[in-house]
Amino acid sequence: MRDSRESNNRGAFTGRSTAATLLSMADDSMIDENQETEALAVWQTLSRLRSARPLVHCVTNAVAMDLTANLLLAAGASPVMAHAKEEVEEVASAAAALCINIGTLDGPSAEAMYLAAKAAVESGVPWLLDPVGVGATSFRREIAERLSHLQPSVIRGNASEITALSQESGGGHGVDATIESWDALDAAQDLARKCGTVVAVTGSIDYVTNGHNMIAIANGSEMMGRVTAVGCALSALTAACLAVQEDPMRATVHALVIMGVAGEFAAERAVAPGSFRSALVDAIYLLDEATLVKAVRIG
Amino acid sequence: MRDSRESNNRGAFTGRSTAATLLSMADDSMIDENQETEALAVWQTLSRLRSARPLVHCVTNAVAMDLTANLLLAAGASPVMAHAKEEVEEVASAAAALCINIGTLDGPSAEAMYLAAKAAVESGVPWLLDPVGVGATSFRREIAERLSHLQPSVIRGNASEITALSQESGGGHGVDATIESWDALDAAQDLARKCGTVVAVTGSIDYVTNGHNMIAIANGSEMMGRVTAVGCALSALTAACLAVQEDPMRATVHALVIMGVAGEFAAERAVAPGSFRSALVDAIYLLDEATLVKAVRIG
Amino acid sequence: MRDSRESNNRGAFTGRSTAATLLSMADDSMIDENQETEALAVWQTLSRLRSARPLVHCVTNAVAMDLTANLLLAAGASPVMAHAKEEVEEVASAAAALCINIGTLDGPSAEAMYLAAKAAVESGVPWLLDPVGVGATSFRREIAERLSHLQPSVIRGNASEITALSQESGGGHGVDATIESWDALDAAQDLARKCGTVVAVTGSIDYVTNGHNMIAIANGSEMMGRVTAVGCALSALTAACLAVQEDPMRATVHALVIMGVAGEFAAERAVAPGSFRSALVDAIYLLDEATLVKAVRIG
Repeated sequence: MRDSRESNNRGAFTGRSTAATLLSMADDSMIDENQETEALAVWQTLSRLRSARPLVHCVTNAVAMDLTANLLLAAGASPVMAHAKEEVEEVASAAAALCINIGTLDGPSAEAMYLAAKAAVESGVPWLLDPVGVGATSFRREIAERLSHLQPSVIRGNASEITALSQESGGGHGVDATIESWDALDAAQDLARKCGTVVAVTGSIDYVTNGHNMIAIANGSEMMGRVTAVGCALSALTAACLAVQEDPMRATVHALVIMGVAGEFAAERAVAPGSFRSALVDAIYLLDEATLVKAVRIG
Repeated sequence: MRDSRESNNRGAFTGRSTAATLLSMADDSMIDENQETEALAVWQTLSRLRSARPLVHCVTNAVAMDLTANLLLAAGASPVMAHAKEEVEEVASAAAALCINIGTLDGPSAEAMYLAAKAAVESGVPWLLDPVGVGATSFRREIAERLSHLQPSVIRGNASEITALSQESGGGHGVDATIESWDALDAAQDLARKCGTVVAVTGSIDYVTNGHNMIAIANGSEMMGRVTAVGCALSALTAACLAVQEDPMRATVHALVIMGVAGEFAAERAVAPGSFRSALVDAIYLLDEATLVKAVRIG
Repeated sequence: MRDSRESNNRGAFTGRSTAATLLSMADDSMIDENQETEALAVWQTLSRLRSARPLVHCVTNAVAMDLTANLLLAAGASPVMAHAKEEVEEVASAAAALCINIGTLDGPSAEAMYLAAKAAVESGVPWLLDPVGVGATSFRREIAERLSHLQPSVIRGNASEITALSQESGGGHGVDATIESWDALDAAQDLARKCGTVVAVTGSIDYVTNGHNMIAIANGSEMMGRVTAVGCALSALTAACLAVQEDPMRATVHALVIMGVAGEFAAERAVAPGSFRSALVDAIYLLDEATLVKAVRIG
């Protein structure tokens, strides 16, 4: 069963007809079947980020803070990092979107995450959960599961994380994926249905599902896995897109495309991860309509 | 009232005569009316940093730690980050200067900040307060106000932060400024008088006041607002200058000039924020007397 | 006594014969007297890192997290940062190596460090202690001493730190070394014997001792001291090498050589610390056998 799904999804980019088949499933989504039309919509989302400069509250891990804040700033958003239980509700309520990332979780930050998520939901602020390394420990699994039931708009993780969170298996013992993204498609759909949310499983090909439909994105560069916190920053960028694009599935697809195209752009300019990290932030800032539209690979 | 002040200050750089008027107010400051002479004094401060390598204790936020430490090292200072209540007094007392930044405040770090500030004052160590995002939550406002009365030598913030801290208004809900620096001049002067300190409000033009005099600095680059923690690193650099330049107003002006000129230098070499971040650190390290003196714009 | 040792060690690189004398002391080490042969062994260690991608658990300081994770990824390892007492034992037990760094120590992280170190030892996972700034406060000294007796495979620090930890003297009040590495050789040997571990004291020349033998490495660049957390990242890289090279003395020497050669490579491409930081990560990723073998300076 997983094998056939895998080949289907690998095939999504061998031709437009397969992509069209996938997209024809998407009856309640606003994703356009026409790749060029959707590419223009991605550009609109990025343009709105740049003009609206939405306030994005990040309760994120200590490794990811620098890249996350810099990538959000480069994309046009206004990041605010706050993790104290005394203030997270106030910050989350005033924000345009919230990103919660459990990468360097501890007791106090877990408490702050619950408070922030609940405040966001009460205030109608969309929020995203990034369950970093959820398969690594029972502590992470417990916190991530509890958070996953607090109505996140989107859950984004790598294949190991999405698999672990959906409880199909133990799923890895570190923070890097040990399986391919297409091996987590069942898990992603199950998780999306169980939590009533959009799930993105990212890897060499990214997949986004609301439990019924499945969109694949083939943008990106292998180098993105060689720089720490690129996934975390992508989650924050997705949260930022939620602030300017109401449909969470579409916001997620757009964020994955923006990051993926920026990754390709950066990989043409940097041959190793140290310089790639700077080039990726530059690319998010420099992306123009023509470059973006030409590069989009949604299927 | 604010309108006329705004036009006065915008006018500070239209000609030497306006600058001279401003500077003539500065009877108890050592800032030299002659821009070239003061430029040489800026160079002396940077030279002293490079030779004395003062130990600068930073109790700062998690987003800013990397850039702050790297910028201090590039400037010649020796940064030490320590935030545990068990050791901050010992570290602050042994340091040449202390920088306290509330960017990712929480209960334990707030307690450490009080202890560090008090120990610094008792030991005669100059210290700077950076009230990051003070307008965002009542928690930040409470902590920042309490700290502002522990005799900081300097308070540095953007216009929203300085306005919020002086309680003229609520002043923003994030960490980025939503008003221009010249809109915060009354607030800056009030705050300086109330706390008996020097206040720097930074933006496209930077202003430094001790509550009586006002110095403006027009160095800098728009790109500095596109990189996270540049303001935080600037605060740490100002603390470092306090270690080698006894007059806090002059130390602050010199730090703003050094950072501003480095920003201009970096902006000539980098067109986007990822590479600009590296170029800014490079520029602080590479600044030579001729480049610095020629670029200084103090009014 | 220290004077003669100093001149001996300074002399280690004036000719092969002195190096051979030093190496002839190393009867129970596997370090090869022939520099070319050992250089090939260094290359093997790096190759194994790249193929095995060992999971390296870091309980490290907030300043160092970004560079540490990026340097480990560039070297081929899979970093995982986790510091909560609820999960550190589980993470450390599953890891291939553990790095504990006290740079931004506090009460909760100290507790997590004990738990992680004990779990590592019980599970046969090699671990490294980096006693950052141990001479700065009594709090750091207390925690670092307690950790040093939990059977670390390696302790790595600068000359001030190693001296302070071996209690020969107070040893500095910041995190940067105030004495030269060769001034800490007695302290390093004493510490190695006392704790039954390998001790590395790094500086312009690096020394590695198990309390009986002493190996010197002359690779590196002055610029490495101008970028924050390079020492911390080196400690993590050493932990990674412990995962793929069973002899801790050899693993340490190999890590120091890899980092030192990468530093030389980076210094040829970057003239200031901002760009050097990226170039260093690039260099670790790009190092090839020919470049590495030619540059090795073990004595």
